[in-house]
Amino acid sequence: MEYVKEFFDTRDRFAKFVGIEIVEVNKGRAKVKLEIREEHLNGVNIIHGGVLFSLADYAFAIASNSHGNVAVAINSTISFIKAVDRGTIFAEAIEISKNPKLGIYKADVTHESGELLAVFQGMVYRKKQVLEDWYKSVR
Amino acid sequence: MEYVKEFFDTRDRFAKFVGIEIVEVNKGRAKVKLEIREEHLNGVNIIHGGVLFSLADYAFAIASNSHGNVAVAINSTISFIKAVDRGTIFAEAIEISKNPKLGIYKADVTHESGELLAVFQGMVYRKKQVLEDWYKSVR
Amino acid sequence: MEYVKEFFDTRDRFAKFVGIEIVEVNKGRAKVKLEIREEHLNGVNIIHGGVLFSLADYAFAIASNSHGNVAVAINSTISFIKAVDRGTIFAEAIEISKNPKLGIYKADVTHESGELLAVFQGMVYRKKQVLEDWYKSVR
Amino acid sequence: MEYVKEFFDTRDRFAKFVGIEIVEVNKGRAKVKLEIREEHLNGVNIIHGGVLFSLADYAFAIASNSHGNVAVAINSTISFIKAVDRGTIFAEAIEISKNPKLGIYKADVTHESGELLAVFQGMVYRKKQVLEDWYKSVR
Repeated sequence: MEYVKEFFDTRDRFAKFVGIEIVEVNKGRAKVKLEIREEHLNGVNIIHGGVLFSLADYAFAIASNSHGNVAVAINSTISFIKAVDRGTIFAEAIEISKNPKLGIYKADVTHESGELLAVFQGMVYRKKQVLEDWYKSVR
Repeated sequence: MEYVKEFFDTRDRFAKFVGIEIVEVNKGRAKVKLEIREEHLNGVNIIHGGVLFSLADYAFAIASNSHGNVAVAINSTISFIKAVDRGTIFAEAIEISKNPKLGIYKADVTHESGELLAVFQGMVYRKKQVLEDWYKSVR
Repeated sequence: MEYVKEFFDTRDRFAKFVGIEIVEVNKGRAKVKLEIREEHLNGVNIIHGGVLFSLADYAFAIASNSHGNVAVAINSTISFIKAVDRGTIFAEAIEISKNPKLGIYKADVTHESGELLAVFQGMVYRKKQVLEDWYKSVR
Repeated sequence: MEYVKEFFDTRDRFAKFVGIEIVEVNKGRAKVKLEIREEHLNGVNIIHGGVLFSLADYAFAIASNSHGNVAVAINSTISFIKAVDRGTIFAEAIEISKNPKLGIYKADVTHESGELLAVFQGMVYRKKQVLEDWYKSVR
């Protein structure tokens, strides 16, 4: 799992730009976190839906790539439950199913207080390309 | 429509942080754009799904708030069609239906080349709160 | 819970037509089942997506109406994992969140063999109307 | 297109059981219809969500199989806009995008009065298997 974590930590520019950090990576699972800052808020002073999505999507991307093959998102759904404007938030992605071509993942977005903020579900198309080979070729 | 555009232009911190600009606002419709930069890329050097979602979500937020009442997103779905790594991208949201409580919107994300990159659909809960009143009270 | 079960058992004509039976109802939860018959198959001899959806949707409807207020579905997503052509299938809906206006539910569709066939997620709008009053007035 | 229409007309047992008829089939498009009957209603006397889904899903299945290769649904989303309890309803599916492996389709469900009842979006995985070969082998 070390190269998967290293790959995302060093290569995903948008996650770094937004401020998302990887907490934990396992086969088919990943947990990430974000400390809410001013730049994450929308017009009505709560965390922007795009931030909650990006957090869940990042956990989903790491979890679905954790098997070693490149997995690309083809479809995602998010439902928003509760809005917050401060504190640290987490997204944890878990694998629901996987076959050679497709994988389905869910991710819950929670606040440090324990409250559920959003539920996310995503599907990936799994390529034959090996993530580690690709990573070695570009770093 | 002027105060709706001004409201989002001046108040939405995440849209500004990501670099999204409003192109046009009409009743039930909105178009936004983003010039892809290095910080929008993911680990495999294409635009991050969170950026495409945030762009579509922003057009959706503006379109759904264009009637004057505060509308909050409750659910969104995005399907990814094609990946790009440079150029300007657009999202245009259009109202599909609206009743006093709920509204449904679709948004297409396109590249400056005309290619369709993603399709988005979102639902809002429409509050009684008037956006303009709220805006006057905070600016 | 008795009148909720009785209400759906006696009033939902499509569920009866398809052959779906209620297994169990609790606050915010419901389990239903269906024995696959010839008329549930699609053109390529596997269970029709509409049947899997209808099964999950029925569990979702019962679970979301179990609190006593009329709840109407506004949005649902289903992902298909595995196809079957015989045996008994189940859908179990569980409440993810609920506020006075909206509720979110998930439902897993499983085969008697234990295999996961589909995952479903739905959102309801909760009306003020009380289900029992309505039921008394029509039966 | 003739064998595609014939294939679905003669082979899809659930569509026939529910009473859905094919109106028109073209490359990447299909239109189907249903006359609402008592057995299509739910507990609160309106058309069951499973019926609206099945109608849209059928148009989607035909449209996505119209290119000649077997296409299987992997994910679908439906949003419900308006409820009806009588009359004829239609679903028309249109292709949004297609590559060798995946296809995205939308379908609008409308009432004979012209009102929009639901919007549906679905994704298929496109197999190498040719529908016509398969059809010849089973009829």
